[in-house]
Amino acid sequence: MIRDFSHVTISCSDLERSIRFYEGIGLEVERRIGELDSDGVAKAFALPRGHLTVAHLRPCGSPGPMTIDLVQWLDPAPEGEAYASLANLGLTRLAFRVEDIDRTTADLRGAGVTFLSDEVQEFGRGVRSAAFKDPDGAVIQLIEGLAEMKDEQPGK
Amino acid sequence: MIRDFSHVTISCSDLERSIRFYEGIGLEVERRIGELDSDGVAKAFALPRGHLTVAHLRPCGSPGPMTIDLVQWLDPAPEGEAYASLANLGLTRLAFRVEDIDRTTADLRGAGVTFLSDEVQEFGRGVRSAAFKDPDGAVIQLIEGLAEMKDEQPGK
Repeated sequence: MIRDFSHVTISCSDLERSIRFYEGIGLEVERRIGELDSDGVAKAFALPRGHLTVAHLRPCGSPGPMTIDLVQWLDPAPEGEAYASLANLGLTRLAFRVEDIDRTTADLRGAGVTFLSDEVQEFGRGVRSAAFKDPDGAVIQLIEGLAEMKDEQPGK
Repeated sequence: MIRDFSHVTISCSDLERSIRFYEGIGLEVERRIGELDSDGVAKAFALPRGHLTVAHLRPCGSPGPMTIDLVQWLDPAPEGEAYASLANLGLTRLAFRVEDIDRTTADLRGAGVTFLSDEVQEFGRGVRSAAFKDPDGAVIQLIEGLAEMKDEQPGK
């Protein structure tokens, strides 16, 4: 039985660069797993080999256990590019809850983050959002007001 | 400031089919946001239009607020395919914590889920894993023992 979320994996081309990026937006390293070269990993993920280096990160103060599983593949080498469009099928965005999105986006712009839109956008019903890309093109979203949103159609 | 995880977005081609799939693996609908057609969504995500239908799901009993943001794009239409390889750059896997992976995988195989490997795989240090694809090819991972794993290099 599924108990809870564990992690979302972001595959990167340079683990140390990506760690610096995520630390810069307010996450911290929870655990450095370091280098693995495992037949089990290869088989579980249907890859020719399972050689990778890994760190787990989460927002400072997050109660856990949810983390980002930041992975740099060593063999096979990282391939392809992140989805060009958010309308692509598959896992397309990772969103973080913020309490003051105006201040957070101003801070991140000051730190050099480029957002997909110049302004924070209104989604309606008190929800506001802004998104940007990580160094390998994975889309990170900031969202304010979602947890407090009134359900129009709660459950089914 | 980033407070915590909010959601991970999975873009699907048929929302009702995907809801049934995720309910079948042990998630529940927390909130049906329904159809949105929002300039704010379009701008936030750098898309020509922001017309989509959405449901939020989470594992039964999860304390939240982390959810899957299950999205079917209506305009623009869903495009592309999910990454063919887990070594692709970008968001590649969503993992759930399970307490008895042998039983969970047996139950899911019985319910028709096809895993990427025939057996549960050992990752070392007590961590065991198995992965499968959702109806649109997003990779879902089950993991046992990760939260209890001893850190070899905690923090930095």
